[in-house]
Amino acid sequence: MLSRIDHVGIAVASLAEAIPHYEKAFGLKVVHQEDNERQGVREAMLLVHSGEAGNSYVQLLEPLREDSPVGKFLAKRGPGIHHIAYGVADIDSALAALTETGFDLVNKTPVHGTAGSRIAFLHPKGLGGVLTELVEAAEGH
Amino acid sequence: MLSRIDHVGIAVASLAEAIPHYEKAFGLKVVHQEDNERQGVREAMLLVHSGEAGNSYVQLLEPLREDSPVGKFLAKRGPGIHHIAYGVADIDSALAALTETGFDLVNKTPVHGTAGSRIAFLHPKGLGGVLTELVEAAEGH
Repeated sequence: MLSRIDHVGIAVASLAEAIPHYEKAFGLKVVHQEDNERQGVREAMLLVHSGEAGNSYVQLLEPLREDSPVGKFLAKRGPGIHHIAYGVADIDSALAALTETGFDLVNKTPVHGTAGSRIAFLHPKGLGGVLTELVEAAEGH
Repeated sequence: MLSRIDHVGIAVASLAEAIPHYEKAFGLKVVHQEDNERQGVREAMLLVHSGEAGNSYVQLLEPLREDSPVGKFLAKRGPGIHHIAYGVADIDSALAALTETGFDLVNKTPVHGTAGSRIAFLHPKGLGGVLTELVEAAEGH
Protein backbone atom coordinates (compact mmCIF):
# COMPACT_ATOMS: atom_id res chain seq x y z
CA MET A 1 0.00 0.00 0.00
CA LEU A 2 2.82 2.44 0.90
CA SER A 3 5.14 3.70 -1.83
CA ARG A 4 7.55 5.75 0.30
CA ILE A 5 8.07 7.86 3.41
CA ASP A 6 6.66 11.10 2.01
CA HIS A 7 7.63 13.35 4.88
CA VAL A 8 8.22 13.75 8.57
CA GLY A 9 6.30 16.70 10.00
CA ILE A 10 8.25 18.62 12.65
CA ALA A 11 6.52 21.21 14.86
CA VAL A 12 8.63 24.33 15.46
CA ALA A 13 7.90 27.70 17.02
CA SER A 14 9.41 29.62 14.11
CA LEU A 15 10.12 28.63 10.50
CA ALA A 16 12.46 31.61 10.24
CA GLU A 17 14.64 30.11 12.97
CA ALA A 18 14.35 26.42 12.07
CA ILE A 19 14.84 26.55 8.28
CA PRO A 20 18.41 27.96 8.39
CA HIS A 21 19.46 25.16 10.78
CA TYR A 22 18.28 22.48 8.33
CA GLU A 23 19.84 24.34 5.40
CA LYS A 24 23.16 24.73 7.18
CA ALA A 25 23.36 21.24 8.69
CA PHE A 26 22.32 19.18 5.68
CA GLY A 27 22.21 21.54 2.69
CA LEU A 28 18.43 21.01 2.36
CA LYS A 29 16.43 23.59 0.38
CA VAL A 30 12.87 24.82 0.83
CA VAL A 31 11.08 23.81 -2.37
CA HIS A 32 7.55 24.76 -1.31
CA GLN A 33 5.88 26.87 1.36
CA GLU A 34 2.22 27.49 2.04
CA ASP A 35 -0.32 28.36 4.72
CA ASN A 36 -2.98 25.75 5.42
CA GLU A 37 -5.68 27.85 7.10
CA ARG A 38 -7.88 24.84 7.80
CA GLN A 39 -5.10 23.09 9.75
CA GLY A 40 -3.93 26.42 11.20
CA VAL A 41 -0.36 25.86 10.09
CA ARG A 42 2.39 27.38 7.93
CA GLU A 43 4.33 24.61 6.15
CA ALA A 44 7.81 24.57 4.63
CA MET A 45 8.80 21.51 2.58
CA LEU A 46 12.56 20.77 2.38
CA LEU A 47 13.44 18.18 -0.24
CA VAL A 48 15.50 15.21 1.00
CA HIS A 49 15.25 12.91 -2.01
CA SER A 50 13.55 12.74 -5.38
CA GLY A 51 13.11 9.23 -6.78
CA GLU A 52 11.03 7.02 -9.03
CA ALA A 53 8.55 6.40 -6.19
CA GLY A 54 8.09 10.13 -5.54
CA ASN A 55 9.70 12.70 -3.27
CA SER A 56 10.65 12.63 0.41
CA TYR A 57 10.67 15.80 2.49
CA VAL A 58 11.29 17.27 5.90
CA GLN A 59 8.16 19.31 6.63
CA LEU A 60 8.62 22.13 9.15
CA LEU A 61 5.36 23.28 10.73
CA GLU A 62 4.76 26.64 12.43
CA PRO A 63 1.33 27.18 14.02
CA LEU A 64 -0.77 30.09 12.73
CA ARG A 65 -2.89 29.98 15.90
CA GLU A 66 -2.26 28.76 19.45
CA ASP A 67 -5.47 26.68 19.37
CA SER A 68 -4.49 24.79 16.19
CA PRO A 69 -3.38 21.13 16.49
CA VAL A 70 0.29 22.07 16.01
CA GLY A 71 -0.08 25.05 18.39
CA LYS A 72 -1.45 22.76 21.10
CA PHE A 73 1.25 20.16 20.41
CA LEU A 74 3.98 22.80 20.85
CA ALA A 75 2.43 24.14 24.07
CA LYS A 76 2.20 20.65 25.54
CA ARG A 77 5.40 18.95 24.35
CA GLY A 78 7.64 21.60 22.81
CA PRO A 79 9.19 21.29 19.35
CA GLY A 80 9.54 17.81 17.87
CA ILE A 81 8.14 15.30 15.42
CA HIS A 82 4.40 15.85 15.04
CA HIS A 83 3.53 13.16 12.50
CA ILE A 84 4.83 10.86 9.78
CA ALA A 85 3.37 10.69 6.28
CA TYR A 86 3.54 7.81 3.80
CA GLY A 87 2.95 8.13 0.09
CA VAL A 88 0.20 6.10 -1.57
CA ALA A 89 -0.71 5.86 -5.26
CA ASP A 90 -4.48 5.92 -4.66
CA ILE A 91 -5.70 7.34 -1.36
CA ASP A 92 -9.35 6.36 -1.92
CA SER A 93 -8.39 2.69 -2.29
CA ALA A 94 -6.05 2.93 0.72
CA LEU A 95 -8.77 4.41 2.97
CA ALA A 96 -11.29 1.81 1.76
CA ALA A 97 -8.84 -1.00 2.58
CA LEU A 98 -8.08 0.46 6.02
CA THR A 99 -11.79 0.85 6.78
CA GLU A 100 -12.35 -2.77 5.76
CA THR A 101 -9.66 -3.99 8.20
CA GLY A 102 -11.44 -2.07 10.98
CA PHE A 103 -8.85 0.68 11.21
CA ASP A 104 -9.70 4.05 12.86
CA LEU A 105 -9.45 7.02 10.49
CA VAL A 106 -9.36 10.67 11.56
CA ASN A 107 -10.36 11.64 8.01
CA LYS A 108 -12.77 9.16 6.46
CA THR A 109 -12.43 10.97 3.12
CA PRO A 110 -9.34 12.81 1.84
CA VAL A 111 -8.78 16.48 2.67
CA HIS A 112 -6.56 19.15 1.13
CA GLY A 113 -2.84 18.68 1.81
CA THR A 114 0.40 20.39 0.88
CA ALA A 115 0.95 21.42 -2.77
CA GLY A 116 -2.42 20.18 -3.99
CA SER A 117 -2.04 16.71 -2.51
CA ARG A 118 -4.93 14.68 -1.12
CA ILE A 119 -4.30 13.49 2.42
CA ALA A 120 -5.92 11.69 5.35
CA PHE A 121 -4.83 11.22 8.95
CA LEU A 122 -5.05 7.91 10.81
CA HIS A 123 -5.51 7.55 14.58
CA PRO A 124 -2.26 7.07 16.53
CA LYS A 125 -3.85 4.18 18.44
CA GLY A 126 -2.43 0.89 17.26
CA LEU A 127 0.40 2.63 15.37
CA GLY A 128 2.71 3.01 18.37
CA GLY A 129 1.15 6.33 19.35
CA VAL A 130 2.22 7.92 16.06
CA LEU A 131 -0.09 10.33 14.26
CA THR A 132 0.09 8.96 10.72
CA GLU A 133 -0.84 10.60 7.42
CA LEU A 134 -1.35 9.14 3.96
CA VAL A 135 -0.52 11.34 0.96
CA GLU A 136 -1.55 11.04 -2.66
CA ALA A 137 0.70 13.60 -4.31
CA ALA A 138 -0.64 15.95 -6.99
CA GLU A 139 0.64 15.52 -10.53
CA GLY A 140 4.18 16.89 -10.81
CA HIS A 141 4.87 16.73 -7.06
CA MET B 1 24.53 15.20 2.02
CA LEU B 2 21.32 13.20 2.63
CA SER B 3 20.34 10.46 0.19
CA ARG B 4 16.99 9.45 1.69
CA ILE B 5 14.86 9.14 4.81
CA ASP B 6 16.32 5.82 6.01
CA HIS B 7 13.87 5.20 8.82
CA VAL B 8 11.64 6.62 11.48
CA GLY B 9 12.29 5.06 14.89
CA ILE B 10 9.12 4.47 16.92
CA ALA B 11 9.31 3.57 20.62
CA VAL B 12 6.78 0.91 21.65
CA ALA B 13 6.28 -1.12 24.84
CA SER B 14 6.02 -4.41 22.94
CA LEU B 15 7.16 -5.45 19.44
CA ALA B 16 4.82 -8.44 19.67
CA GLU B 17 1.86 -6.08 19.97
CA ALA B 18 2.99 -3.31 17.60
CA ILE B 19 4.26 -5.36 14.64
CA PRO B 20 0.88 -6.99 13.80
CA HIS B 21 -0.77 -3.54 13.70
CA TYR B 22 1.72 -2.30 11.09
CA GLU B 23 1.44 -5.55 9.13
CA LYS B 24 -2.35 -5.45 9.15
CA ALA B 25 -2.76 -1.73 8.45
CA PHE B 26 -0.21 -1.32 5.68
CA GLY B 27 0.94 -4.79 4.68
CA LEU B 28 4.47 -4.02 5.87
CA LYS B 29 6.80 -6.97 6.59
CA VAL B 30 9.59 -7.31 9.14
CA VAL B 31 12.75 -7.82 7.09
CA HIS B 32 15.25 -7.65 9.94
CA GLN B 33 15.24 -7.91 13.71
CA GLU B 34 18.09 -7.64 16.19
CA ASP B 35 19.00 -6.74 19.76
CA ASN B 36 21.35 -3.81 20.18
CA GLU B 37 22.73 -4.42 23.68
CA ARG B 38 24.74 -1.20 23.68
CA GLN B 39 21.64 0.91 23.02
CA GLY B 40 19.52 -1.39 25.22
CA VAL B 41 16.94 -1.91 22.50
CA ARG B 42 15.30 -4.64 20.42
CA GLU B 43 14.75 -3.41 16.85
CA ALA B 44 12.38 -4.57 14.13
CA MET B 45 12.80 -3.10 10.64
CA LEU B 46 9.68 -3.03 8.43
CA LEU B 47 10.44 -2.23 4.80
CA VAL B 48 8.44 0.68 3.32
CA HIS B 49 10.32 1.19 0.07
CA SER B 50 13.35 -0.12 -1.74
CA GLY B 51 14.81 2.25 -4.32
CA GLU B 52 17.95 3.29 -6.17
CA ALA B 53 18.96 5.54 -3.24
CA GLY B 54 18.59 2.74 -0.69
CA ASN B 55 15.81 1.44 1.53
CA SER B 56 13.32 3.20 3.79
CA TYR B 57 11.94 1.52 6.90
CA VAL B 58 9.68 1.88 9.87
CA GLN B 59 11.84 0.91 12.84
CA LEU B 60 9.93 -0.32 15.89
CA LEU B 61 11.94 -0.12 19.12
CA GLU B 62 11.27 -2.06 22.32
CA PRO B 63 13.51 -1.31 25.31
CA LEU B 64 15.58 -4.18 26.74
CA ARG B 65 16.03 -2.23 29.99
CA GLU B 66 14.04 0.49 31.73
CA ASP B 67 17.16 2.65 32.09
CA SER B 68 17.97 2.57 28.36
CA PRO B 69 17.33 5.71 26.26
CA VAL B 70 14.18 4.19 24.70
CA GLY B 71 13.05 2.87 28.12
CA LYS B 72 13.34 6.37 29.60
CA PHE B 73 11.59 7.89 26.59
CA LEU B 74 8.65 5.48 27.00
CA ALA B 75 8.38 6.14 30.75
CA LYS B 76 8.38 9.91 30.20
CA ARG B 77 6.32 10.34 27.02
CA GLY B 78 4.67 7.04 26.21
CA PRO B 79 4.92 5.37 22.79
CA GLY B 80 5.72 7.58 19.81
CA ILE B 81 8.40 8.71 17.38
CA HIS B 82 11.80 8.52 19.06
CA HIS B 83 14.07 9.69 16.22
CA ILE B 84 14.44 10.13 12.48
CA ALA B 85 17.34 8.73 10.47
CA TYR B 86 18.67 9.95 7.12
CA GLY B 87 20.83 7.91 4.79
CA VAL B 88 24.28 9.17 3.80
CA ALA B 89 26.78 7.68 1.37
CA ASP B 90 29.82 8.41 3.56
CA ILE B 91 29.23 8.99 7.26
CA ASP B 92 32.82 10.01 8.00
CA SER B 93 32.60 12.87 5.47
CA ALA B 94 29.17 13.84 6.76
CA LEU B 95 30.36 14.04 10.39
CA ALA B 96 33.45 16.00 9.34
CA ALA B 97 31.28 18.50 7.45
CA LEU B 98 28.87 18.87 10.39
CA THR B 99 31.75 19.40 12.81
CA GLU B 100 33.17 22.07 10.50
CA THR B 101 29.86 23.98 10.49
CA GLY B 102 29.90 23.94 14.31
CA PHE B 103 27.16 21.35 14.68
CA ASP B 104 26.74 19.38 17.95
CA LEU B 105 27.22 15.63 17.55
CA VAL B 106 26.19 13.02 20.11
CA ASN B 107 28.56 10.55 18.42
CA LYS B 108 31.71 12.23 17.11
CA THR B 109 32.67 8.97 15.40
CA PRO B 110 30.30 6.33 13.96
CA VAL B 111 28.94 3.54 16.15
CA HIS B 112 27.34 0.19 15.32
CA GLY B 113 23.80 0.47 13.94
CA THR B 114 21.13 -1.90 12.64
CA ALA B 115 22.16 -4.64 10.22
CA GLY B 116 25.85 -3.76 10.21
CA SER B 117 25.29 -0.09 9.40
CA ARG B 118 27.49 2.72 10.71
CA ILE B 119 25.48 5.41 12.47
CA ALA B 120 25.82 8.61 14.47
CA PHE B 121 23.29 10.66 16.41
CA LEU B 122 23.08 14.46 16.26
CA HIS B 123 21.84 16.69 19.08
CA PRO B 124 18.14 17.65 18.82
CA LYS B 125 19.04 21.27 19.51
CA GLY B 126 18.75 23.34 16.36
CA LEU B 127 16.88 20.55 14.55
CA GLY B 128 13.44 21.41 15.91
CA GLY B 129 13.94 19.25 18.98
CA VAL B 130 14.30 16.13 16.85
CA LEU B 131 16.84 13.46 17.76
CA THR B 132 18.45 12.84 14.37
CA GLU B 133 20.56 9.92 13.17
CA LEU B 134 22.75 9.53 10.11
CA VAL B 135 23.08 6.03 8.61
CA GLU B 136 25.66 4.63 6.24
CA ALA B 137 24.10 1.31 5.27
CA ALA B 138 26.20 -1.85 5.06
CA GLU B 139 26.73 -3.42 1.64
CA GLY B 140 23.57 -5.20 0.51
CA HIS B 141 21.24 -3.31 2.87
